[in-house]
Amino acid sequence: MFDLKLENGIIVTMEPGCRPFVGSIGVTDGRFAAVCEGALPGEARERVDAAGKIIFPGMVNGHVHGDMTVLRGLGDGLTLLEQNEIYEPRRYFLEDLTKEDLFWSRQLTYIEAIMSGTTFLLEHEYTSLGKDSVRAMAETGIRGGVSDDIQDRLAAGGAKALREDYAAFFSECREQGILPVVSSLSEEFFDEEQLRLIEEFARDSGVLITQHFAETDWRSRHIAEHFRTTPVRYLQERGLLNIVPIIGSHAVQVDREEVGMLGRADFRVVNTPLCEMKIADGVAPIPDYLAAGVPVGLGTDGGLWNNSNDLFREIKGILLLHAITGGVRAVSARQALEMATIQGARVFGLEEELGSIAVGKRADFITIDTDAPHLCPLRLGHYDNVLSTLAYSVTGQDVRDSYIGGRAVMRDRSLCRVDRKRIMEAAREAGERVLARYDPRELLRPED
Amino acid sequence: MFDLKLENGIIVTMEPGCRPFVGSIGVTDGRFAAVCEGALPGEARERVDAAGKIIFPGMVNGHVHGDMTVLRGLGDGLTLLEQNEIYEPRRYFLEDLTKEDLFWSRQLTYIEAIMSGTTFLLEHEYTSLGKDSVRAMAETGIRGGVSDDIQDRLAAGGAKALREDYAAFFSECREQGILPVVSSLSEEFFDEEQLRLIEEFARDSGVLITQHFAETDWRSRHIAEHFRTTPVRYLQERGLLNIVPIIGSHAVQVDREEVGMLGRADFRVVNTPLCEMKIADGVAPIPDYLAAGVPVGLGTDGGLWNNSNDLFREIKGILLLHAITGGVRAVSARQALEMATIQGARVFGLEEELGSIAVGKRADFITIDTDAPHLCPLRLGHYDNVLSTLAYSVTGQDVRDSYIGGRAVMRDRSLCRVDRKRIMEAAREAGERVLARYDPRELLRPED
Repeated sequence: MFDLKLENGIIVTMEPGCRPFVGSIGVTDGRFAAVCEGALPGEARERVDAAGKIIFPGMVNGHVHGDMTVLRGLGDGLTLLEQNEIYEPRRYFLEDLTKEDLFWSRQLTYIEAIMSGTTFLLEHEYTSLGKDSVRAMAETGIRGGVSDDIQDRLAAGGAKALREDYAAFFSECREQGILPVVSSLSEEFFDEEQLRLIEEFARDSGVLITQHFAETDWRSRHIAEHFRTTPVRYLQERGLLNIVPIIGSHAVQVDREEVGMLGRADFRVVNTPLCEMKIADGVAPIPDYLAAGVPVGLGTDGGLWNNSNDLFREIKGILLLHAITGGVRAVSARQALEMATIQGARVFGLEEELGSIAVGKRADFITIDTDAPHLCPLRLGHYDNVLSTLAYSVTGQDVRDSYIGGRAVMRDRSLCRVDRKRIMEAAREAGERVLARYDPRELLRPED
Repeated sequence: MFDLKLENGIIVTMEPGCRPFVGSIGVTDGRFAAVCEGALPGEARERVDAAGKIIFPGMVNGHVHGDMTVLRGLGDGLTLLEQNEIYEPRRYFLEDLTKEDLFWSRQLTYIEAIMSGTTFLLEHEYTSLGKDSVRAMAETGIRGGVSDDIQDRLAAGGAKALREDYAAFFSECREQGILPVVSSLSEEFFDEEQLRLIEEFARDSGVLITQHFAETDWRSRHIAEHFRTTPVRYLQERGLLNIVPIIGSHAVQVDREEVGMLGRADFRVVNTPLCEMKIADGVAPIPDYLAAGVPVGLGTDGGLWNNSNDLFREIKGILLLHAITGGVRAVSARQALEMATIQGARVFGLEEELGSIAVGKRADFITIDTDAPHLCPLRLGHYDNVLSTLAYSVTGQDVRDSYIGGRAVMRDRSLCRVDRKRIMEAAREAGERVLARYDPRELLRPED
């Protein structure tokens, strides 16, 4: 007896080499219990006819700043350096936002993510909310991790404080099934001793470490001026690439030799192509990472740097950006779809649990309604175009249903766990209240 | 008495310098009769409450190959030159498609366009369908033009045949309110005498002329090898930039001095950023065109070169492409939105009739539902982000209603004039039948 059975769907498992087929999936105890072509024998508590729908793994968004979503669209037309100059003195408005505001900002981000096909997301928080931070994620039903920025805590209390401060945070996360992550220093704060301390702390605590890494030329220039080297070489020369796996967000300013170093270490990339285009960060060496076996996942970053948390837009974005800069086959549709699924899971060491539709894995999946002119014709079998359609034509708004651990979190575009209207209204009020405190001229508005 | 009144909408007129406001529009005899902040006095036959919806001008898609939509996704991962080598010997399958197939392929394209916010579209046809061609467009209710490729006809019958063959086509178009356009020679067929003949024919017939122009390096190399010049200079040196206005599709391979020449002539560009990225055509000098006052519109091209006919995706595409290549302020959100509206209309000499919401203009407009997490928060008044949201966050699937000449062609995402299911099914069958004739290996499938 399955808990749930979906039949007649167009299944795209994202298992290696697997082509789309019409078939069924069965779910028991939150995991895929069966995946097959055609009908699936056996009873089920709930049966869903998925005819005309693509069944696809739930996607992994590896880099999100949910705290910034209430400010969506602020900072358009500015580079990250220009934004820092204007917004950093105001601490990016984080001090103007209450704990409750940040709670709603994150929930808004997570429901946007769920509604566009994401089932696992890494929140890069700026201000730890403790229990609130974990609750914002857990309530929506999304799976994910929370990455806390270790910098201020380290500066304030040193190594001993680190261990004490994080004990509660780690256990709160684990109680809610959320992955605890610590966020290391950005390049402008690189300090060998502190980095070593953080990495050893992460290793001893059994948590992953993330770093905004080689994102912008000005951060790389900082390393060049102070240490006469590059971000990758800084870590390599000091033996800091070998203590723990590092998840490098962006990882744009990296040359080919450095890609080799990262490939030999346990380094994982989360690239955010639309953010990097919008703020003109540069073009990450994605084809080189793929050739070197570096896992590459995708992220959407935050509301000031992208304006959208739809991973399907990132998939098309990374394909087109690398076609124009590296040639039409620099990244393939399958590779881009893998970045949003199985490679994204690999970034977090969760490739045995998430990222593809396979018996034994957690039943995190979405359905995509193909009954729409922009997805027509969809061809199966002879010269199928299902992966092409997913990569180049689908957007998050084509997602109809989302299941996490076999439970529906969205059904026919209605969220099952939280009140969408309430979250949107609270987030809208928070953003408006904060910006009302400032004269628009102070915030700099480049001509729309 | 208005025929139609929409109230409480967030109106984005796209008139110069106009910022979004909450207000009403009134329509009489197919044209905007009133546009105002707040309530609009006066009775109306039909009243619509547009609360929470953005009212935006219907968009102009200046370059579409609707004949290719049934083959959507064929040719992914290939450059245009590679596609030509494989598909040109098969005439791009056009000989395998019946007149009826092409009719459905176009209707599929037009309903995709309508459903994503386009109200005027230029069909670049490969095979003239005469009455069928015009009917495919007219039936859906979309406004637009049909551009017929003059090359084969000129080769077959010369100047005299041109006049006779086109007389019926032009009058059929005009009877249906469709703009007749002729499509001139691509670079590999440039011939001074023929170009002069075509341009004089267009001038005498009072029709616009379009040209696939300076799209690829190999076409430009052809001009360099045969004429020791560039496409723009070829036309300039022979006085061919001054006979009629020319609409150049793509216009990628153009240097800064040439932009000046085009700015002094009556040259208009339709750029297709996502297509140009996908097939690695290069980056058009859009900021230079804007500085030189060359009207720039947007197009989506065809199913082999883009996979989507959603202009909102082109708007974000042109912004991000030029941010990463030319700096974060190379193109502004407002400029990109203008390309899809008022500048697109100007490309076709229709800026007095279409492209913005203004009293006296034709009432072609769309509504966008903002009640969605990915469009939240939407801010009006103090530091508004409505243009930012339209440019960076909205997709065609957020469009709820589409009015052309004041009549609904889509209401709450249901098409009013044609049977969506029937069109999709017929188009699907056509594409499948054609591709079934070929061995997938013949068609070359780069790894997905």
